[in-house]
Amino acid sequence: MARLRVHAFSISIDGYGAGPRQSRAEPLGVGGEALHEWMFPTRTFLAMGKKGGGTTDVDDAFVRRGFDAIGAWILGRNMFGPIRGPWPDDAWKGWWGDDPPYHTPVYVLTHHPRKPVAMKGGTEFRFVGDIHQALQQAARAAGSQDIRLGGGASTIRQYLQAGLVDEMHVAIAPVVLGSGEHLLAGIDLPGLGYEVREFMPGSGATHVVVARKQPPRSDSGHRALTTR
Amino acid sequence: MARLRVHAFSISIDGYGAGPRQSRAEPLGVGGEALHEWMFPTRTFLAMGKKGGGTTDVDDAFVRRGFDAIGAWILGRNMFGPIRGPWPDDAWKGWWGDDPPYHTPVYVLTHHPRKPVAMKGGTEFRFVGDIHQALQQAARAAGSQDIRLGGGASTIRQYLQAGLVDEMHVAIAPVVLGSGEHLLAGIDLPGLGYEVREFMPGSGATHVVVARKQPPRSDSGHRALTTR
Repeated sequence: MARLRVHAFSISIDGYGAGPRQSRAEPLGVGGEALHEWMFPTRTFLAMGKKGGGTTDVDDAFVRRGFDAIGAWILGRNMFGPIRGPWPDDAWKGWWGDDPPYHTPVYVLTHHPRKPVAMKGGTEFRFVGDIHQALQQAARAAGSQDIRLGGGASTIRQYLQAGLVDEMHVAIAPVVLGSGEHLLAGIDLPGLGYEVREFMPGSGATHVVVARKQPPRSDSGHRALTTR
Repeated sequence: MARLRVHAFSISIDGYGAGPRQSRAEPLGVGGEALHEWMFPTRTFLAMGKKGGGTTDVDDAFVRRGFDAIGAWILGRNMFGPIRGPWPDDAWKGWWGDDPPYHTPVYVLTHHPRKPVAMKGGTEFRFVGDIHQALQQAARAAGSQDIRLGGGASTIRQYLQAGLVDEMHVAIAPVVLGSGEHLLAGIDLPGLGYEVREFMPGSGATHVVVARKQPPRSDSGHRALTTR
């Protein structure tokens, strides 16, 4: 069964996944770009833009992990683009040019129907109205692989509250934003059955993996917490 | 002029400074103890309990820094004790026994008057009704030294919102609490003039220092952000 995984979702010290006043010029909101600075120098991130070089440290390992065994993606509509309401035409095809870095089917959540859009490199955007439908269709497409839930914050919040996220990697970035889209406000992670599974400092962020509590095993009371 | 400093205030990944349902048996709320586990093995923490040994790493350095040049403390009433409303008598003298780890005047915020209580080792608890009065009196007592704002979360929030905190060290601990007292919800740190000054992983927590933005200096556009 395909697992639903969040990777490399950056939040500020005060918990925001995007800054205030998102716009086409600032899709991550005011100050939101700083959330992702830890990622930009990594080898995996640079390779996505067809660039060589880059760091290969803990930060890079966490970016890379987000592409392991992923057979489908799910994105909130705002991550796909700035257009709200019905689609005026088929012109908008995402922020990423002709050959987006997904290379799988990508299920975009929207209440407004639209035909699938096939891109270069194996990415196909498919439009779905409901988080459960999207997950079902993505699971079918992913087969034996997993599904990556890309974001944004409100999409992740919906899947968390429905108890459908299997694993979530959050990168805490050294920035305060003061307002914007909060990732975890009002979400009772322990009540939903989640715990901190990994906690690992990188060069530019602290990495946290939250996952569902595993049933206790008779051979060990040891907590699988990675720290250093 | 004495500065108002917060040190070693632990928060969870989801931003809580204490767990839900605080009580005399669980003064940090349910699950709140886990917030402070990073501190327990440090040399400075053990020395406060008159114990030897302990770690001397980054975590310890941050605990130790919280006692440098401190001439007075301010505590919220809940940090002082579990009693609410008027003081029934003078029996409650804090959680810390005869010789509390402060060794300075300690201003306890309460709307209910009470006479000062002198303890062993130079600690004296003094009771004040207002955050501004407490700060004024603490500044006078501290002289050329600084004032440490001990907590809890709601007390720190009041001083932050009034723009009175000069520096705040927060330790992000590898735990999710789901509910409780949130430290930063609804507080616009950048709007209040704060920025992230230091960001440093320790063995058991990630340390963040937030401080007022310094005026730009003509000799450098360099950002004084410590990271590794």
